[in-house]
Amino acid sequence: MKDELITQILKNEIVKALGCTEVGLIGHTVAKAKPKDPYSIEKITLILDKGTFKNAFSVGVPNTGKFGIIPAVVGGLLGKKENGLEVFKDIKYDENLEDYIKNRLKIEVIDSDVYCKAIIKADKIYESETKGSHSGKSISSELKNTYKTLKLKDFIEYIEDIPEDIVNIIKQTIEVNKNLSTPELPKDFMKLNLKDDILNHMIKKTTSAVYNRMIGMNKPAMAIAGSGNMGLTATLPIIAYDEITENDKEKLIKALTLSALTTIYSAYHSSYISAMCGCVNRGGIGAVSGLSYYIFGENRIEESIKSFTANLPGIVCDGGKIGCALKIASGVFSIYLSLFSNVPYNNGIVGKNFEECIKNIGKIANAMSPVDDVIIEILKNKNL
Amino acid sequence: MKDELITQILKNEIVKALGCTEVGLIGHTVAKAKPKDPYSIEKITLILDKGTFKNAFSVGVPNTGKFGIIPAVVGGLLGKKENGLEVFKDIKYDENLEDYIKNRLKIEVIDSDVYCKAIIKADKIYESETKGSHSGKSISSELKNTYKTLKLKDFIEYIEDIPEDIVNIIKQTIEVNKNLSTPELPKDFMKLNLKDDILNHMIKKTTSAVYNRMIGMNKPAMAIAGSGNMGLTATLPIIAYDEITENDKEKLIKALTLSALTTIYSAYHSSYISAMCGCVNRGGIGAVSGLSYYIFGENRIEESIKSFTANLPGIVCDGGKIGCALKIASGVFSIYLSLFSNVPYNNGIVGKNFEECIKNIGKIANAMSPVDDVIIEILKNKNL
Repeated sequence: MKDELITQILKNEIVKALGCTEVGLIGHTVAKAKPKDPYSIEKITLILDKGTFKNAFSVGVPNTGKFGIIPAVVGGLLGKKENGLEVFKDIKYDENLEDYIKNRLKIEVIDSDVYCKAIIKADKIYESETKGSHSGKSISSELKNTYKTLKLKDFIEYIEDIPEDIVNIIKQTIEVNKNLSTPELPKDFMKLNLKDDILNHMIKKTTSAVYNRMIGMNKPAMAIAGSGNMGLTATLPIIAYDEITENDKEKLIKALTLSALTTIYSAYHSSYISAMCGCVNRGGIGAVSGLSYYIFGENRIEESIKSFTANLPGIVCDGGKIGCALKIASGVFSIYLSLFSNVPYNNGIVGKNFEECIKNIGKIANAMSPVDDVIIEILKNKNL
Repeated sequence: MKDELITQILKNEIVKALGCTEVGLIGHTVAKAKPKDPYSIEKITLILDKGTFKNAFSVGVPNTGKFGIIPAVVGGLLGKKENGLEVFKDIKYDENLEDYIKNRLKIEVIDSDVYCKAIIKADKIYESETKGSHSGKSISSELKNTYKTLKLKDFIEYIEDIPEDIVNIIKQTIEVNKNLSTPELPKDFMKLNLKDDILNHMIKKTTSAVYNRMIGMNKPAMAIAGSGNMGLTATLPIIAYDEITENDKEKLIKALTLSALTTIYSAYHSSYISAMCGCVNRGGIGAVSGLSYYIFGENRIEESIKSFTANLPGIVCDGGKIGCALKIASGVFSIYLSLFSNVPYNNGIVGKNFEECIKNIGKIANAMSPVDDVIIEILKNKNL
């Protein structure tokens, strides 16, 4: 029963995703509402929920070489609505159209689940809207609530004998996420080169993949709990560690499965998206559990989670963008540090065990929602 | 004029401090209200502001070998009120008294500036209260507001020709804060040993000092903008870098002065204490400016500050405690990373220049105040 629930959750929450979905959502919504002649447009009003606004604000738009909401709208005007979230496939970007649209675009941000509405005023009013949820496939809240009652020992039991179809998903995750790590991130973005081979490799591998995803590279990622960057952070530090040390495929698969289980558990105990950086705080805590298992076995997972809880919780999510790679570099450092430190329960938000640590981090994430408004104000007032 | 203001601010905001002031505040307040016979006490009610509660909750109490509010109260009952914040000087801790007091102590937390009131019910009611501010000495809000209008170039100009008395304060800072770095932190707390000598030395030196301060070691720190840990984070990464590389005392003094100026600037643009970790976000940003100046001269200070702004802002302050050393280890990593990365202005809360970055981080810190309530709830409900 328990194991079947876990299997079902994993199948739904580890999903292949191409590009940051927010810009695809905007492009697709615009494509559904576009008039024949884009130069007939007098005004476009885009209504976005906070998360979509924040995450589309400066992320790379596939096939355009550009970043942010304007190219997503222009790409939508150029793309085919039939292509769904892959609306930018095969488009040829048009700079003139961007110039034309730029001053005719108005963006409103609302409080809502994933939402995008486009109202285009041309020869007549064209409208379309797309609603969504941040989890790729749908899982009932009943199942989620049951999953939330599980304990670390349930996850440990599960990874002792992983069903074949989950093993295959994890193998695919290794391949897909590793593939996103090339090319390495450019030196003019980050040229830190630590003389510690293990940590350096973990950081390079993880941040390169996040960077490539954020510039809109045409390669998929295996997303976990609704986020590509979270999937990368939950897996690549472990994959990189394995690569440079033991090369033990079987242990790697167990460690990655544990990481995914922990990441999903963390997401269910806070939310899919939040004002707190999920990649570091949910994907990162997954990587802590997986790596701790990989290196030390099951014995010090709880200690490592406590150390991580004493460390980066709170770090904000100010949207998907290349800068995420820096947050994740610090995340990888902190993941690694957690494996070699011990913090007593009396320290701040550190919980008495695995479950309480994750619940406490979730409480912090939920209390941070006013921070989202400040972030959105800052973004709106940027003079770009 | 400008330079005189800066000198005055530095003289007031770089202050020698022994131990975490919050437990001293509690001990002193209790000492002022204590009856002759502590075993006559029926009940002690302690009313604390949030910051004092949070920061005293699991910090080391000097001369007791213990951590947190109960030993601070017991220490206050044993100490002399004449010793002020150094109330724990010369006491001999009494375990029996701790057992006696433990179940007679009630703590209330209120929303206020630094505040502690003790109401002791014994043969009669004894009361005392201490009010304070988190800055050691007082600076008018007019001066603070003028300081907030300064720009990076004013700080750069200032450090080109630092007045002799400030040079002496900085020299004292080097000596005092370096001295707190020994002994190294114990391996059972943290045994990360990076093969990168520079980063490893910076982390060890800074975290050891923070750890020693948090266990209540009887050595002072030079606090900056009201916080000892902030002073350590703003100075030791630079001191350690200098030690292991160039050993250039003159450049070190300039870099540390710039760091202090930036740290104070950050504190004035948010607040002395907050739900966001000031050590990492204010002391850390100081260290970024100082180190960037030390290594590259004045040219890439702004780029380094932008990279740091893209990184750890938001990380919570859940009170003074040994776990701070882990946050600060990640802080040092992120400080170092910022020196070697570049993030464009369109990235999230990254500002267009030094001043805007610091203002934006301040906005985040201020928006995080609801998080403090969650942290205090978590602490109150701990089953210690």
